[in-house]
Amino acid sequence: MLLSHVRIIGSGLIGSSIGLGLVQRGVSVSMVDVDPAAQALAQDLMKSAPNTEPDLVLLASPLGSISTVLKGLDISNVKYGFMDIGSVKTKVKVEVLASHLPVGSFLPTHPMAGREVGGAHSARADLFEGRPWIIDSNGANPQLVSAGRELIEALGATVIDMDSSEHDQAVALVSHLPQIVASLLAGQLVGARPDWLNLAGAGLRDTIRISGSSPDLWKEIITANRDSIIPLLQNFISDANDLLKNIDDENYVGEVVEKGARGKSAIPGKHGGKQREYTYLPIVIEDKPGQLAALFDECACADVNVEDLTIEHSPGQFTGLITLALSESDAAKLADHLKKNGWSVHAQR
Amino acid sequence: MLLSHVRIIGSGLIGSSIGLGLVQRGVSVSMVDVDPAAQALAQDLMKSAPNTEPDLVLLASPLGSISTVLKGLDISNVKYGFMDIGSVKTKVKVEVLASHLPVGSFLPTHPMAGREVGGAHSARADLFEGRPWIIDSNGANPQLVSAGRELIEALGATVIDMDSSEHDQAVALVSHLPQIVASLLAGQLVGARPDWLNLAGAGLRDTIRISGSSPDLWKEIITANRDSIIPLLQNFISDANDLLKNIDDENYVGEVVEKGARGKSAIPGKHGGKQREYTYLPIVIEDKPGQLAALFDECACADVNVEDLTIEHSPGQFTGLITLALSESDAAKLADHLKKNGWSVHAQR
Repeated sequence: MLLSHVRIIGSGLIGSSIGLGLVQRGVSVSMVDVDPAAQALAQDLMKSAPNTEPDLVLLASPLGSISTVLKGLDISNVKYGFMDIGSVKTKVKVEVLASHLPVGSFLPTHPMAGREVGGAHSARADLFEGRPWIIDSNGANPQLVSAGRELIEALGATVIDMDSSEHDQAVALVSHLPQIVASLLAGQLVGARPDWLNLAGAGLRDTIRISGSSPDLWKEIITANRDSIIPLLQNFISDANDLLKNIDDENYVGEVVEKGARGKSAIPGKHGGKQREYTYLPIVIEDKPGQLAALFDECACADVNVEDLTIEHSPGQFTGLITLALSESDAAKLADHLKKNGWSVHAQR
Repeated sequence: MLLSHVRIIGSGLIGSSIGLGLVQRGVSVSMVDVDPAAQALAQDLMKSAPNTEPDLVLLASPLGSISTVLKGLDISNVKYGFMDIGSVKTKVKVEVLASHLPVGSFLPTHPMAGREVGGAHSARADLFEGRPWIIDSNGANPQLVSAGRELIEALGATVIDMDSSEHDQAVALVSHLPQIVASLLAGQLVGARPDWLNLAGAGLRDTIRISGSSPDLWKEIITANRDSIIPLLQNFISDANDLLKNIDDENYVGEVVEKGARGKSAIPGKHGGKQREYTYLPIVIEDKPGQLAALFDECACADVNVEDLTIEHSPGQFTGLITLALSESDAAKLADHLKKNGWSVHAQR
């Protein structure tokens, strides 16, 4: 094991998730953040407080702050050097080249994982499990590359070594264009009649899920990667215009929908995020305080672990629907237990 | 109970789900389909074989087949009349007006529920639970309206009475435009390098989830509702062009993303409810059975109402993070209560 102490600068979602994952694997982590409250929460989550010099520094602060962070970065006592996790690689590489830091001590990397919610409070140690994590090893010291690979693999991610400019084109397609399209679509809802928005179903909600992402984060990413994004956005707009022109031609419209289905199925299924094969158990409950506690008492009683849950209820309505996500065996066990105890369980086929 | 036997014409996802739901509530259902094998499968699913005349006929066949179905429809011995479930209401209304059928015996309706997979094999009796179901009662016989409402409420859906043309504008915004945008975006992936697509994460997958929908279904819906869709698609394209022009202006780009976030948050969080401002309370807990129950016991003890919650944890991790959504006053009360009792609460600034 090359790493015993990693210093993480930036306690947002990615920094804190990396920290949690490393601590879980026995690596000490020190969290640094310009915001003392954010640093305190992140450090509390780590349950780790090393007071030695780190072996590796990981920059996990926003793209726009990287040049400032680089100016203040002292790696003279850091064993291997530093790596970043920025979403646009050419921009960071250029900034490191312009800094006082030796370029060989920098490993540009980008974990292809995230959530539409940010901050340490959304962090999860398994965020990177099974996810691709790109590095650009070209020009970095071999020992630093080994340490970086060790960190990435310890978190369950898969290292993909890729040139920085190729990386920027790939993410423009699979990440930045989708963000732009989701944001533009969600923007159409501003000012819409609330009773119309009330009709929104899971389709709309999923399509715009990522539109809840941070404007501060994304304005930096989109502008930084404008060269790769522009031709893709132009093609998208051109296709939209063609559909508009041919909207009365049912066959043309059908081909657009069919082409979309083909595009969707072109995404390899096996390399997605870590497959979370949960079984969902919908339970109708009375929508009042005490019912959730009673339900979780039953879960504890049945000795099952609830992995996730959602609550659906309408104000003024007497019933709510809570859906628990569990392992298949726990779901079967709990459904059985709850039914015996008079709960309204709707196990799905 | 007005209904004892409903005939359903069309055994796809919606027709079969309605049938299953009705049978579960003690109503006899006869399934009719142009495809004898599909009809046999659907009828078998129902485990119901009435040989009386139906009280109500429900048209659940594709939009494009409605005029043919109307031509062959005999409702002379049907007690209340017929209703449909088509996604575009003005088109069906026009076709009924052009048919031999008395317009008062027709109730136009549209359940706002579906799945991206179709067919009787995907049907679920609880598909409509808690979902809005639009009717246009204007011009329909009152007894038919009552029977239609009974059917909808029996399936757990909420009746919303709305003019057909207003309905078509509303669904153009919350359903048809999202489908078009998701299909166009997914279409950009056709022919992309597989190693680039390999980098796709949950963000892209969710954004294009509905692009897997049926081209045959959607070509009919989009063309039928072109009048309502065209101005929305024009606005969307115009916004996309503006972003393209201003992509080097970080503030402009940030405003586009921020506007999207505002549009997303304009959607009411719970069906039928008004948008409510929740305060989020992150709490670090030990990730083991019993902790959630203990936490909800505290909530009951503090007499607060948990509106929503999320759980973040990794299997095998010793700590998890649970975030409760509460009213501002309940959040303050609970944070106070939990801190006094030794819980690790991280109230947000």
